[in-house]
Parts: sequence; structure tokens; C-alpha cells
Amino acid sequence: MLIGKVKGSVVSTRKCERLVGNKFMIVEVLKQHVQTGGADQIIAIDKIGAGIGDYVLVAQGSAARVGTDMEDAPIDAAIVGIIDDGTGLE
Amino acid sequence: MLIGKVKGSVVSTRKCERLVGNKFMIVEVLKQHVQTGGADQIIAIDKIGAGIGDYVLVAQGSAARVGTDMEDAPIDAAIVGIIDDGTGLE
Amino acid sequence: MLIGKVKGSVVSTRKCERLVGNKFMIVEVLKQHVQTGGADQIIAIDKIGAGIGDYVLVAQGSAARVGTDMEDAPIDAAIVGIIDDGTGLE
Amino acid sequence: MLIGKVKGSVVSTRKCERLVGNKFMIVEVLKQHVQTGGADQIIAIDKIGAGIGDYVLVAQGSAARVGTDMEDAPIDAAIVGIIDDGTGLE
Amino acid sequence: MLIGKVKGSVVSTRKCERLVGNKFMIVEVLKQHVQTGGADQIIAIDKIGAGIGDYVLVAQGSAARVGTDMEDAPIDAAIVGIIDDGTGLE
Repeated sequence: MLIGKVKGSVVSTRKCERLVGNKFMIVEVLKQHVQTGGADQIIAIDKIGAGIGDYVLVAQGSAARVGTDMEDAPIDAAIVGIIDDGTGLE
Repeated sequence: MLIGKVKGSVVSTRKCERLVGNKFMIVEVLKQHVQTGGADQIIAIDKIGAGIGDYVLVAQGSAARVGTDMEDAPIDAAIVGIIDDGTGLE
Repeated sequence: MLIGKVKGSVVSTRKCERLVGNKFMIVEVLKQHVQTGGADQIIAIDKIGAGIGDYVLVAQGSAARVGTDMEDAPIDAAIVGIIDDGTGLE
Repeated sequence: MLIGKVKGSVVSTRKCERLVGNKFMIVEVLKQHVQTGGADQIIAIDKIGAGIGDYVLVAQGSAARVGTDMEDAPIDAAIVGIIDDGTGLE
Repeated sequence: MLIGKVKGSVVSTRKCERLVGNKFMIVEVLKQHVQTGGADQIIAIDKIGAGIGDYVLVAQGSAARVGTDMEDAPIDAAIVGIIDDGTGLE
């Protein structure tokens, strides 16, 4: 998993039916967890109720569907936990 | 998921049978979502009806097949939503 | 999927039994599809009959097995289509 | 798999139910195993009992769930072994 | 798949039970197959009997378990073939 900070969300009205009802959060990946020189954002489904500014654990790949009761939705990233105390993470 | 902008499409007449009938869209990945210094394009199947210039949500990996009713096709990226308003994303 | 150009092949006599009968093509990934500053090649199984110089669509991950009738082979990349006209892609 | 060194852990009280009871270890990826110029940490579940300072083998993707008896948890990285002697690895 | 050169191995006595009996080979990824500026090693299970100095084909992700009869082990990389002649690859 990686750690990121919730920055906002995007709205998509025209989408796959199995995505209806989900929030697409913009997660800013912490510098140490960024997988490249450039990429610093990921769009993740939120099943926990994270708010803007929260530090979150993001699971990627098939893990995003497994265990979030969304096994039949086209999702490759999900917020699966909120970090209690993000102090010192950045 | 990542956010990209539809740039065009490629045509492939000789392809796996299970890909027949699909459009291969060239999606320019937004700078913040690019996973490297270099990579800025991905080829994604479109099940939503995105047009050139649209900002889209792209699911990668097995997520591209799951939930798009293409579980038996060799697909690793799919457009799963169109962003309502891309203003300020770039 | 990514777009690459077939450059040649490698031969492996000692290999997993379930790989017997397959060709291992060296695919040079197009610059816009390279996922890093450095990586510019991938080894992909060819089920379409691509030749050297062809521009091809490569599916990665589990997609390489799904839909190519090779679900029980240790394959993570497959040529799933040949681009009709590669002009302007590079 | 990649090799990393356990650096600490993060606490997440609000998380997916299927993650309850797990430890989220911060693993510093060894320089040769870092997949980018920037990323040097990963959050991995620990099923082995690794301690801070241990050199560990981390499996990523669906491998993290398979074989760790956590097939229904949203996990994409797990510590699956502790290296006996990390001398010379760094 | 990627091509690498076997460099050595690591020993892990405390590991997941389903990994018992496997060798963890250190594979140096060939420069053209490195997926980043930095990463040049991967730890792969060897089911073929590769020796130090051999050029090998490495399958990653779920492909490493499929077709190697290790579907229930936490493995994300496996040596699935030995290149007959590595001349000119580097």
C-alpha cells in the first residue's frame, strides 16, 4: 500500500454502471511513496469516509476490489484506511 | 485510476478475436498522473463513448476487464468514466 | 495496452513446460509509452504472427493470458494486435 | 519480490474491516530494488513478525494476499520472509 | 517478461510456509528492461535451475504463480526460461 493525502475529488456522470454511487478522490501520493519522478496523484475510490487533508492508505491493483465488496467494479485503487496521526510522515 | 485526455485512436485489423469490435483510444495521461519521466500515453479500450478532447478516468490491470463485461479479452486499460469538468485539472 | 515495434526474438530451450511452442518477441516500446527513463524493451509472446518492424499492441499483466487461450502459462506480456498504419506514431 | 528494511509502522484505526488485526509496516526499499528515482517506501502487511531493522522480502500485487491466508483483504504488499543475513545487501 | 542475469541468491529461514523449499535468486535486470532510472534488481523464484551468470526470462505478477505450479504461494516474480545465447543482449 502507499500513503497519500486526500486533496479533493472529481465528478464523472457518464461512467461504467458498476461505478455508480462511488466517490473518486484525488489522492496526492507522499513523496517517499511516489513511484516516479513525475507521478504524484492517483484517483482512488473511498469506502472509509476520508476527508480532504486526511492521510490515507491506498491499496492498488486487484486489492482495491477485494475486501471492499466491489469485486465486479472496474477499480484499481481504493482508500482502505485513514492514518491516525500523519505527523512526521511528510 | 488515472486521469487522461483522449487524443485519438489506432486501428488494428489483425488482432486477437476477443478484441474485435473495440476501439483503441490513445489517452494522453495528465502530467500529475504520469508514472514516469517519459511515459505519457496509454492505449485504452473505450466502453463509455469518449470523444477526442474528453478528460477520462482510466482503470488499469485486471480492473479494465472486470465490470466492463470483457472478462475474457486481453485488455489491461479501459476508459471507465468521463470527467464532467476538466477545468483546472491540467 | 502499449504500442511497440517488433525488433527480434530470443530463444529459450530450457523453460517452463507451459511455455513450449511460444515465440518470445523483443518489443521496443514507443517513446511515449515507455514507463521510465530507461526501460525500452519488453519480451512478449506473439499469438498474432507479427513480423520484425511491425507496430504492435502489447497487453500486460493477467491480460496477457486472458483471451489468448494461455491462462495456465507464466506469461505477463502478449502481442494482441498489429497496428495497421504506424505512420506518425513515432 | 523486492528487498527492503523495516523502518517502523503506521496506525490506522478507521480502516476496512478485513484489515483489522494487521500491522502496517513501513518498509524502506533497498536502493537497487527501488522502482523509480523517487519512491523509497512501501507499506506492507507483516505476517512473519519482522522487527525494525530487519531486511525483508516483500511480495507485491495479488501475491501479497495469496499464500498469506488473506485472500479477501485489500492488501497489495506483504512481508513474506526475513533475510537471514543482510550484510552486503546495501 | 523481462530479461535479467542471475547474480546470486538470498537466504530466508523465517518465511511464509508456502515458500519453503524455494530458492530466491537475485536477478540483475538488463539495462533495456529496467523499469526505472534506479531499479536494477529483482528477487525471483527459480523453477528452471538457473545458475549464476545465466541470462533468464522473468515473469512478473500473477504470471509468476500461474504455470509454475505455485498458485498458492506469495510470489510475484519467477524465472520461467533460460536464454540460450545472451550474446549481444547487453
